[in-house]
Amino acid sequence: MEYIFSDKIKNMKPSAIREIFKSLADPTVISLAAGNPSAQSFPVDQLALLSRDIFENMSTQALQYSVTEGYTPLRQAVAARMKEKFGIGRDFDATLITTGGQQCLDLSAKVLCNEGDVIVSEQPSFIGALNSFRSYNTRIVGVDRKEDGLDLEALENVFKTEKNVRMLYLIPTFHNPLGTTLPLENRKAIYALCKQYGVMIYEDNPYGELRFDGEDIPTLKSMDEEGIVIYSSSFSKILSAGMRIGYVIAPEAVMQKMVVAKQVTDVHTNIFFQILCHRYMTECDLDAHIESIRRLYGHKCGLMLDTLDKTMPKAVSYTRPQGGLFVWATLPESVDMNAFVKKAIENKVAVVPGTAFNCDESAPSSSFRLNYSTPTDEQIVKGIEILSATAKAML
Amino acid sequence: MEYIFSDKIKNMKPSAIREIFKSLADPTVISLAAGNPSAQSFPVDQLALLSRDIFENMSTQALQYSVTEGYTPLRQAVAARMKEKFGIGRDFDATLITTGGQQCLDLSAKVLCNEGDVIVSEQPSFIGALNSFRSYNTRIVGVDRKEDGLDLEALENVFKTEKNVRMLYLIPTFHNPLGTTLPLENRKAIYALCKQYGVMIYEDNPYGELRFDGEDIPTLKSMDEEGIVIYSSSFSKILSAGMRIGYVIAPEAVMQKMVVAKQVTDVHTNIFFQILCHRYMTECDLDAHIESIRRLYGHKCGLMLDTLDKTMPKAVSYTRPQGGLFVWATLPESVDMNAFVKKAIENKVAVVPGTAFNCDESAPSSSFRLNYSTPTDEQIVKGIEILSATAKAML
Repeated sequence: MEYIFSDKIKNMKPSAIREIFKSLADPTVISLAAGNPSAQSFPVDQLALLSRDIFENMSTQALQYSVTEGYTPLRQAVAARMKEKFGIGRDFDATLITTGGQQCLDLSAKVLCNEGDVIVSEQPSFIGALNSFRSYNTRIVGVDRKEDGLDLEALENVFKTEKNVRMLYLIPTFHNPLGTTLPLENRKAIYALCKQYGVMIYEDNPYGELRFDGEDIPTLKSMDEEGIVIYSSSFSKILSAGMRIGYVIAPEAVMQKMVVAKQVTDVHTNIFFQILCHRYMTECDLDAHIESIRRLYGHKCGLMLDTLDKTMPKAVSYTRPQGGLFVWATLPESVDMNAFVKKAIENKVAVVPGTAFNCDESAPSSSFRLNYSTPTDEQIVKGIEILSATAKAML
Repeated sequence: MEYIFSDKIKNMKPSAIREIFKSLADPTVISLAAGNPSAQSFPVDQLALLSRDIFENMSTQALQYSVTEGYTPLRQAVAARMKEKFGIGRDFDATLITTGGQQCLDLSAKVLCNEGDVIVSEQPSFIGALNSFRSYNTRIVGVDRKEDGLDLEALENVFKTEKNVRMLYLIPTFHNPLGTTLPLENRKAIYALCKQYGVMIYEDNPYGELRFDGEDIPTLKSMDEEGIVIYSSSFSKILSAGMRIGYVIAPEAVMQKMVVAKQVTDVHTNIFFQILCHRYMTECDLDAHIESIRRLYGHKCGLMLDTLDKTMPKAVSYTRPQGGLFVWATLPESVDMNAFVKKAIENKVAVVPGTAFNCDESAPSSSFRLNYSTPTDEQIVKGIEILSATAKAML
């Protein structure tokens, strides 16, 4: 049989990151390529205790079909926490529980975009988001994210010249892959531009609570008087990534369509773990737990930056994150990035090539992404030393 | 802000069944409208014990990110069980774990269909499938499912006259909503026609193992020498619906595209419950557990049919299922179905109007769906007695 695939899927390939993971089967390779939270960030003992109680006292509810919107007590707890801590959510907003943050991306693109419609994205950006948008045959237009924020002139130019711009996709805080954060003034200006041109903002904030340095910056959603921001986050980086629980806070009218779309996608998210999340939030000290993850990642990021400062040739630049999981390093023009990444793997260190995060898949990149949440301290030091030696040899 | 939604979503409404569920907030209403498995079908004690052990001995793996294809031991156990018990799966097939059976529908439509492409379906059929197909702006063409099987002449006529027919969607065994099963000769003829016209078959089989009467009939997938059948089922009706674990067995080439699509949809399915499923399959007696569900539903279906036989006016016909969850009843032409369903709710019994299962949403129906897995024995008897009295009063 000759299979015929849809136009939106037929040219899609497995993500480059995923292919790198497969090359990690070799246990002697140090991986700085992951995007995983540290296993130390899972509060195993408390989740185990709560799970026992759910099986004992709420088993029918936890194993039976549930409603698409999500477990009501969890939705309420999430909405209350976001409101109280971050000023997120107004009367016109609603909360939906999703199967990980990834599903928020999928539902938003499905609900807002026809094939050929434009989604504007920071360049570079999260490959999982870009691929989700590609899977609806949308056109992704990249706007450079510079040192001091998103290029506003370029953004307005896109809004002026492109037709059917449906969404601006942003990771304002502890960006993946950059590790950096948009300044407040830049956020305000972006919000004003999107309001002026009638473009929805998708604020993806999976790492926002993982700040280990500096002061919190208000989210775009906290400024959202007009109902133009879809805000998404998840429990993947603070409780468990494998349980796949995310959430979205968005204007009710948009949410209604997302609920309809989710219903035909997976009916609802695993209800046992929704209940578990709610009970953890209300019976354990989530804030103290997050604080411990912050300290852990602050230490690991510091170790990576220290080792980079000590060993990496000056010609290689890198970001200095105040939170999140990633450092973004950039090679001088004289070094070919793909050759460097290949050489690094030969030297037993895996990183993600910057091309994976390009809005335009055919564009070049001289950067690569480093992760510090997954490797051990020893692996961080040894991995960076090897990368530094690799870079030196290629300069 | 005036929100602009995609063409595929803007006209979609929440499912009619879901709206009926909301009217069930009244606890005095007997619901024969559900599609839920009985809570007695959840092996709570064994799942609780295994969960404890997973938290104790496999917690990192069970809470961390995992691969899109699904937990390898579960994929292998599913493939081996399907092969051994039902002759399903050939060398060219692969297995994917999905977030419930619903996600198999979503991924198949996404991978195979452009907007405007045709999906052929039995008329009537499962609303969750039809709505999933609608959410990709495909065109659903219904072919009548008659007493002795699918109307083959009508099916071939559709294949001959319609352009871009991408898939034939079937629930061959214990159909939702009909409760009936396609005979072997009809299955063979359908397979031959699809082979001849190069149309993929989607065999949806969530109820296939729930036979309480008669003999198993080979699945279409077991006949699939040519790699034209996508076979889907789930653990929702045999272990837990709320955990959202389904699976699909399909030719490798199709599966590769489904994996790419799943990756950008939800990355992977809840890994804790994938491990739990695998451990239940390999450490407990799944076959004996399924046998107990069969006995339970055989008893409940028998009770419903007995009560129908005793009390329902002869002018009302109904199917006699040999398995699954549903009975399909049809009113004589003199009774308006919508008026009947409305009157039944006034009399405190909820059923699902047949229009909900129409391929053509604007077409009429004189039928309604009854469920026997969720209500208690007492509710089944009382509910049917009330429906019978309601029908008598309207004849």
